Amino acid sequence: MIAVLKQGVSQAQLDHLKDWLSSRGLDVHISNGQYQTVIGLIGDTSRVDIDLLQGLDIVESVTRIIEPFKSANRKFHPDDTIIEVPGATIGGGHFALIAGPCSVESAEQITAVAQAVKASGASILRGGAFKPRTSPYDFQGLGVDGLELLAHAKESTGLPIITEIMNLSQLPYFENVDIIQVGARNMQNFDLLKELGHTGKPVLLKRGLANTMKELLMSAEYIMSGGNEQVILCERGIRTFETYTRNTLDLSAVPMLKELSHLPVVVDPSHATGLARLVEPMALAAVAAGADGLMIEVHNDPAHALCDGPQSLTPEQFDRVAGKVFKLREVLA
Amino acid sequence: MIAVLKQGVSQAQLDHLKDWLSSRGLDVHISNGQYQTVIGLIGDTSRVDIDLLQGLDIVESVTRIIEPFKSANRKFHPDDTIIEVPGATIGGGHFALIAGPCSVESAEQITAVAQAVKASGASILRGGAFKPRTSPYDFQGLGVDGLELLAHAKESTGLPIITEIMNLSQLPYFENVDIIQVGARNMQNFDLLKELGHTGKPVLLKRGLANTMKELLMSAEYIMSGGNEQVILCERGIRTFETYTRNTLDLSAVPMLKELSHLPVVVDPSHATGLARLVEPMALAAVAAGADGLMIEVHNDPAHALCDGPQSLTPEQFDRVAGKVFKLREVLA
Amino acid sequence: MIAVLKQGVSQAQLDHLKDWLSSRGLDVHISNGQYQTVIGLIGDTSRVDIDLLQGLDIVESVTRIIEPFKSANRKFHPDDTIIEVPGATIGGGHFALIAGPCSVESAEQITAVAQAVKASGASILRGGAFKPRTSPYDFQGLGVDGLELLAHAKESTGLPIITEIMNLSQLPYFENVDIIQVGARNMQNFDLLKELGHTGKPVLLKRGLANTMKELLMSAEYIMSGGNEQVILCERGIRTFETYTRNTLDLSAVPMLKELSHLPVVVDPSHATGLARLVEPMALAAVAAGADGLMIEVHNDPAHALCDGPQSLTPEQFDRVAGKVFKLREVLA
Amino acid sequence: MIAVLKQGVSQAQLDHLKDWLSSRGLDVHISNGQYQTVIGLIGDTSRVDIDLLQGLDIVESVTRIIEPFKSANRKFHPDDTIIEVPGATIGGGHFALIAGPCSVESAEQITAVAQAVKASGASILRGGAFKPRTSPYDFQGLGVDGLELLAHAKESTGLPIITEIMNLSQLPYFENVDIIQVGARNMQNFDLLKELGHTGKPVLLKRGLANTMKELLMSAEYIMSGGNEQVILCERGIRTFETYTRNTLDLSAVPMLKELSHLPVVVDPSHATGLARLVEPMALAAVAAGADGLMIEVHNDPAHALCDGPQSLTPEQFDRVAGKVFKLREVLA
Repeated sequence: MIAVLKQGVSQAQLDHLKDWLSSRGLDVHISNGQYQTVIGLIGDTSRVDIDLLQGLDIVESVTRIIEPFKSANRKFHPDDTIIEVPGATIGGGHFALIAGPCSVESAEQITAVAQAVKASGASILRGGAFKPRTSPYDFQGLGVDGLELLAHAKESTGLPIITEIMNLSQLPYFENVDIIQVGARNMQNFDLLKELGHTGKPVLLKRGLANTMKELLMSAEYIMSGGNEQVILCERGIRTFETYTRNTLDLSAVPMLKELSHLPVVVDPSHATGLARLVEPMALAAVAAGADGLMIEVHNDPAHALCDGPQSLTPEQFDRVAGKVFKLREVLA
Repeated sequence: MIAVLKQGVSQAQLDHLKDWLSSRGLDVHISNGQYQTVIGLIGDTSRVDIDLLQGLDIVESVTRIIEPFKSANRKFHPDDTIIEVPGATIGGGHFALIAGPCSVESAEQITAVAQAVKASGASILRGGAFKPRTSPYDFQGLGVDGLELLAHAKESTGLPIITEIMNLSQLPYFENVDIIQVGARNMQNFDLLKELGHTGKPVLLKRGLANTMKELLMSAEYIMSGGNEQVILCERGIRTFETYTRNTLDLSAVPMLKELSHLPVVVDPSHATGLARLVEPMALAAVAAGADGLMIEVHNDPAHALCDGPQSLTPEQFDRVAGKVFKLREVLA
Repeated sequence: MIAVLKQGVSQAQLDHLKDWLSSRGLDVHISNGQYQTVIGLIGDTSRVDIDLLQGLDIVESVTRIIEPFKSANRKFHPDDTIIEVPGATIGGGHFALIAGPCSVESAEQITAVAQAVKASGASILRGGAFKPRTSPYDFQGLGVDGLELLAHAKESTGLPIITEIMNLSQLPYFENVDIIQVGARNMQNFDLLKELGHTGKPVLLKRGLANTMKELLMSAEYIMSGGNEQVILCERGIRTFETYTRNTLDLSAVPMLKELSHLPVVVDPSHATGLARLVEPMALAAVAAGADGLMIEVHNDPAHALCDGPQSLTPEQFDRVAGKVFKLREVLA
Repeated sequence: MIAVLKQGVSQAQLDHLKDWLSSRGLDVHISNGQYQTVIGLIGDTSRVDIDLLQGLDIVESVTRIIEPFKSANRKFHPDDTIIEVPGATIGGGHFALIAGPCSVESAEQITAVAQAVKASGASILRGGAFKPRTSPYDFQGLGVDGLELLAHAKESTGLPIITEIMNLSQLPYFENVDIIQVGARNMQNFDLLKELGHTGKPVLLKRGLANTMKELLMSAEYIMSGGNEQVILCERGIRTFETYTRNTLDLSAVPMLKELSHLPVVVDPSHATGLARLVEPMALAAVAAGADGLMIEVHNDPAHALCDGPQSLTPEQFDRVAGKVFKLREVLA
């Protein structure tokens, strides 16, 4: 970590700062330039609060040399993390196709979709029971009933299930769930992340709409520092000024996150674009970029498509996309 | 609400859509242009899920005419909402200066700061007990102990207190708190918002880093639709590409939110800029833009300033800013 | 085009507006809702200045139904535009690999790179002669001399050439150039675009760092409305809050632009990411997303790599990427 | 300037880099951390191309310690720059109110507006002759005729005039113009900036929609390095995800730019918000934030307001705003 001091810092101020840093177990190297003094901090800087340092009157800027995430950092853990649930493996060359409806609506719906996506090659079933919605007047999900329907679909198809948690109090209901999803809006719900650090279940952590990759990795660090190292990162689009698509899918995050971290990275092209017709090209692009998995919305009843999210594929459309995805992976191997 | 259909929609598809909309209690007006058909929806469209509509195969785009927020909407409630707590009033021409440390650290610290800011004209004391931090390795706040210290400071100075809640389970500890703060990262923690809709306490709701004003108002709507209409909106900077400041303070949000809504709007220049030396100009600018209050970080111990957040003012600096703020308000009145 | 009027508009104001719109050749349909009046405009609204309308005291918001671009609009020109230069074809199923150094530096350099990339399958040679640099103290390119070196490389390899124009006065020197590039910073240099509308040469138009797809298409419209319909669109990353990559490559722009317009779309993964090691995954992802071409920086002298842009591949690295690109296109066909 | 090297760099690579840096006249200090090697560069680093360095295989990241702008840097020129034109002074405590119509439309219009804004206290007249418009189908300005009308208005009122230049070839027509404006879309039209560096006229440089303050200062540097040190910086809103306002006015840029640079900073609240009703609060906020001037759109004919930009004030509205602005400046003095 390097701190650049402002012009005109006194020796007393400098000594005071040096003592404070030393008391935190850091070695301090000072070099004086023509216009400014630069301080190099050596030691475990992940525990130094960069905001504190940056806020000092005598400091102009602070730059980290070593990333503040440790458990998630590939520098310290070069081998790929591999996540295993009964029936599916993600990471380290293993690819998982996660599919299912935005919301669980009924036993018929979730079972029919589960069977269809399994037949097309999906290895994990998704389905929302607790739904974060921008408006209090929109459908909020079936809640605990939805979790039960999901569990039935798991039983009848053998597919492991993933579903979103919205707050700590829901955790007891997630016993049957194979992978717990943390949504984009909860990526920095730190209390929830801490608690998930004490469960034994894999967590799929979605990147927040306005969060950097570094913040995503720091949130993974919250889970991992609690003892749970089974984290899957998920890119699902970030917020930009563009309006033709709902969000801007940042596919460069796939190779970049895989360079920075050993954790698997999956992509959700459905939520990123918000448009069913863009799911196929973006799914293929994600695979070409090196994603360890895809998460795709599928709904089974085109006749009542009015109740779909705008980005859902029909099982037939999904089957076509899945076929292309597997073909693409063969070529890239 | 207006939906533009794609070219080549069949009469059967159109009828199907019309029936579905009618079943939701909406009147439907159809007008055929040269290239496209446009549907106007009349009735209570706040309960129509715009994503559902937008996702339909036959729909090209959807535009709301009436904003989806109702309780927060000035169109339906033209008079300013005024929030009162013992010792302070916000909104409807009443101005409140909220000040205090980022984190409560000790009884001495919080009491000293409370006395100082009160002497300078602050009418509400802020202080963090539960702290949302990007890194799990950073100081997480004193928790329940911090709340107690805050309550003592309230008792000794008579200042009402505001502090941040991070999750539902903390609510029982907030009995002595006068205004509950929801932080930027929790602005779309919908379960938390719903619960706060059932308390009788005012809620200060901070705009998320990447949230639009409309989303801020929809989150206020979550609280208000539960029955709690005492919501204070807070602008604290949004995330942009600029790096010299931590965030970009969006002061146009002040007059814009006050036009859209009857709720009071306060500004937090400390977190927005992340730089103590920008607090004064931005505080004055916020007042000139029409803010109903300011929330400013103040820390009392310049000798150990290393433990401050980077944006904290000393009590002396705060006194100078407060003086200018009150002088400015007189002129603008 | 639909305009929503504010509450409380008088009949006189409404009549005045109606007359003004009619005088512009538009039919006007008025429908009165419970809270607001909505006006539908029918006719050639591409010539209506949306800002003028939006600025009226009595107007709350304006929405376009038909996009304001006409020549570039696929609705009016369903067939793909195909651009042909001697030795290369782009669009309508034809793919072009454009490669070469960021800057032309010497005869040896540009000829060596040209021969190398041709051998790897590139069909167009790129190389900068006039360089837009953020700092006046950075290398500004060889200028007219660079254009001559490029022409020699064209002669010796048979590859058509593309290079960037920075202002109108340079146009006379572009006689030997096959495709004129307009850089991201000049995407809204409207005088330059107008002039290029009168040349007979294809123009590759790069999306600006903070420009929407609609603005990109409006800039294409500037060129096309002058009579030159040979425009190639280029996605090269947009500016976001993310800092690990230089820009955020928006690959969803590929299928989206191809839906909105009949013009070919190429992707520049080198400038978008600013990191050589991300060029391969992003190039493959762009192809999987349906791009009609790629533009990749290649430099020939790894021993003096200090003079490369940070995103340049060596000829050997490029050869590997090109091989994978062609293999991928075969599978996707 | 500090460069962090990747892990595993060989001594030979390090020596090679050191030699290259030394050959550029820089002193090099090397310090080895546990995981990484850090290089400090001492000397005139404004001439080091950060992109080149960042692009090297062996470099992980580069950080500037001294800003790359020199002529514009307050560190090297602590005193405020003061710009003087006949009848107006900007900077160093002098404030200028710049007002006038978006476009010059006729002799009557520009003269009437000029007289009105002068009476309200404006000291500089603005008016567009060459207009950059997103659509080729929108009004493009009166061009040279507009410049003549502006010159007449200058003669009859004594107000100095400011108007926008769009390309180099227009420069000969700007002889009568007192301040040349470079619009947001041309902020990085480097050839234009270079040429303006050789004129003797003050230049008002608007910040681009997606440009950082550093880039704005680097563009000022282009003008100043040519010998013309009379540059006025103008904040006019940046592009964000927010849609209620046209752009997001970044008022923290006012104190920040004035800290970084000695150049005067003015604010354009009209273009930033795009809404006439937000001009007053944002103008007052800009003054409170310390702006050296304001640039406000005023149009004289409310009966034909349809031809105004959406953000124009009437002369009466402007008179009210001007009165408040001057009153506010008195209090803040």
